[in-house]
Order: sequence, then structure tokens, then C-alpha cells
Amino acid sequence: MNLIIIHSDELEQGRVTLADARAEHIRSVLKAEPGQRLRIGLLNGPFGRGTIETVLPEAVTLACEWEAETPPRLAIDLLLALPRPKVMKRLWAQLAALGVGRIILTNAEKVERYYFDSHVLEPDFYNARLIEGLQQARDTHLPEVRIVKKLKPFIEDEFAALYPNTLCLLADPSSEKSLSVSVSSSAEHVVLAIGPEGGWTPYEIDLFKKHGFKAIGMGPRILRTDTACIALLSLVTEIQRR
Amino acid sequence: MNLIIIHSDELEQGRVTLADARAEHIRSVLKAEPGQRLRIGLLNGPFGRGTIETVLPEAVTLACEWEAETPPRLAIDLLLALPRPKVMKRLWAQLAALGVGRIILTNAEKVERYYFDSHVLEPDFYNARLIEGLQQARDTHLPEVRIVKKLKPFIEDEFAALYPNTLCLLADPSSEKSLSVSVSSSAEHVVLAIGPEGGWTPYEIDLFKKHGFKAIGMGPRILRTDTACIALLSLVTEIQRR
Repeated sequence: MNLIIIHSDELEQGRVTLADARAEHIRSVLKAEPGQRLRIGLLNGPFGRGTIETVLPEAVTLACEWEAETPPRLAIDLLLALPRPKVMKRLWAQLAALGVGRIILTNAEKVERYYFDSHVLEPDFYNARLIEGLQQARDTHLPEVRIVKKLKPFIEDEFAALYPNTLCLLADPSSEKSLSVSVSSSAEHVVLAIGPEGGWTPYEIDLFKKHGFKAIGMGPRILRTDTACIALLSLVTEIQRR
Repeated sequence: MNLIIIHSDELEQGRVTLADARAEHIRSVLKAEPGQRLRIGLLNGPFGRGTIETVLPEAVTLACEWEAETPPRLAIDLLLALPRPKVMKRLWAQLAALGVGRIILTNAEKVERYYFDSHVLEPDFYNARLIEGLQQARDTHLPEVRIVKKLKPFIEDEFAALYPNTLCLLADPSSEKSLSVSVSSSAEHVVLAIGPEGGWTPYEIDLFKKHGFKAIGMGPRILRTDTACIALLSLVTEIQRR
């Protein structure tokens, strides 16, 4: 936990009383004492400093001061064919840590329907994991999660309005085109589509291409969904930083 | 499993009989039948084609033909402060899938000694995971694993001889220098050092810098060890591909 994230509804007259894993972290890992100042962040808001007022076995109280500005968020969204629940469970925190703005989880021909019934898609479950990732990476922007059970109508009817000025990339192991060639401007908003373990079908690839997606590859290696997500998101972010 | 890897000692007069997870994959996932040709690879050797001769409940037999040349291996090694066994367990296959040549796992001030007693560091355990990663990524090069219990003598006495013409990079979240600036030539062999969850100590950073390591950063985000490994290895590989 490299940042303690506070929710705005936890604040009372500029103070917060923590009684969960954050309090435990302050007591046992940071071994912080009254008067000490800790790095804090307001969920979807600015960073700040929390001055410890009391450390009790049942709770820790902090007085919070906030910076004037909320840090900018990264300009990258992910459209991901829903992976197996076991993989998705591990991926939430990593996606938040990498700074994804919106996570769109979609059905695809090679996605099993029952994946959508998993508890890993319940907001209480994923929000906790996403915040864990933010606390790791020192970010305050909670990714927006959207679950799309039908890919075709989403791409045909909603996608263009949602992403008017966006570079749309489709990870395709068969593409020779590298990311560095496709992502040029640092200011560009990017949405990256990553397929299921068995890949998108030719029909799905065609659907994406018809709606403006450019195929990009990472060389001949075929990566697991979670590895591919981390690899490609890092590549796009690094190019955007230049 | 995107490639079926065969060990040379399994071959008998150009034939191999499989009775493990590979046979199961051929029967249940590929649903392959006699006469069908499958993509195979010889561990640390060339790719090839295996023609199915028999599919029995207890075993599958293939006649193997090999390409003339072994594909080149990527020019990237990883020097990693040993993470918690739970993290290391998941990382093996991913490192092999990303094409790391040599994995050096080292002690560091902030690495717990007991991590070195874990079964995840036993060759039988990790070789199985590494081969799983190769079969995923379609590679035949088994990474070499080296376990270093004392970082200082390794860097001072052995490192230079092991890496004479190598670009040595040290992942350091406090560094402003991006990877794209540091890795220039596509031919360059790279060794990348990644620290423990709590970071390297100033003494350790100094030791690396004295021995020619250049610090590189990935921006202000602090990533978990496993996320950082995947992110940085992908970045180096992408730059080397250019």
C-alpha cells in the first residue's frame, strides 16, 4: 500500500477514522504515531497529507489536507473479451495499477457464457480489487467498469458515440504492425481491444476493422490474456509518455 | 497450448509417444486424428511438424520432422530480487512466455530469507512451469535459471565476466529516464534488474550503479513485482524489435 485512499463519504469535517486494512497497514507496516504525516489520496480526487491524530487498536484517525488539483488520468481504455473468472480475479488490481480509465468487458464467440455469472463481476468485489491496485500504484482514479454481454450491437450502435476522437487498436497476434508505429501522438486517447484465449473469430476481427480499429501485433509470441493486457497497456502508456 | 514441446530424450527413431498433459491436449482440445499434422518444437531446438500415427486412451504417438534451424532467442535476461513464493509461482510461465534467456533470482536486503526454501525454486517445479510458458508462447528456448543467495559477491566477482557486452538496466521508480531513451540498438543484449516489493536499498542501488547499471523508470506509478516484470520485459523486447 503506497497510498492510503479515502472515500469522500468517509470524511467528516476534514477528518477520517479508519478501521479496516488501511488502519492495520498504518499500525503494523508503517508503525505510524500521532503527529506523523502520511501520503493519502481522495478517490477520484487529489492527493493529500493525513496527519495522524490517534492510533487505537480499533481505529486510526487522520486529519486530511488536500492538494488543489486532481492529477490527470491516463488516456487509455481497455476493451477485453472476458477471461476466465480466475484470471479476471487477478487482473482487476493490475489494470487499476496500470491506470486504465475504463474497462469494458465483453462477450465474444470464444468466451463461455457462464463467465458472466461469476462473483468477480460484482461491483463490491471488483471495486475493492481496483482500489487495491490504485493504492499500490499511487493513483486516485477509479477505473469505470462496463460489462457488455453482446459485442455486435455495442460496437455497431454505441461505440462511435463513446469514442469520437480515439485511436482504436486491436491486438492481433497475426499483425506485423508494431505498436510504436501505430501510436504516434502523446496526446491521443487510446482504446485497446484484447481478445479471448482462443482469439477473436474472423467475423469479430472484421467487425472491429469496419469500425475503425487498427490491428497491431507484438511479434510471434502468443501471450496469455493477463500477460498480454499488462504488456500492451504498458507499451501504449510508455509511448504516450514520450 | 499453442506448441507441443518434445524433449530430445523422448525421441526414439524420429517418433515420440506422449502420455501426459500433451496427449490429453491432442485428444481433448485439438481432437486430432491419425494422419493429422501438429505444430511441435524440440526443447532448446527447432520447430517442426508431428504427424499423428496413433491416438489411444493411454498414449498418442507422433512421427516428428524438424526444421533445419533453431529460431534465435531474445537477447534479454532478468535479474530479479526473489519475490514471495506465491508471486514467483505465477511468474515462471510468464517469464518463459516473454522470452527471457536467463532468470537470475537474487537475495536483497528486503527479501525474506525463507523465500529461498520454497518448493517453487526446485528445478522440477520451475521447469514444468517454464515449459508451460514456452508452449503458450510458441518458443523452444528454456530459460536458464540461476539462484544467487548473496547479491554483493555475485555483482562484484561474477557479473562482469557473465555480461561483458551487455546493456545493464536497473528499474528504479524514482528515475525520470525512460526505457526508450536508454535502449537504442536493436542488437543489444540487455539485462534488467528488478527489485523487491520494498525496493532496493540505497546501498544496493549504489552497488548496481558502480557496476555499470543505468537506472530507468516507468513514470510515477509503483507496480507490483510481477506486473513490473511483464511491463518492463515487454518494453525492452518491443524496442529491440524495432
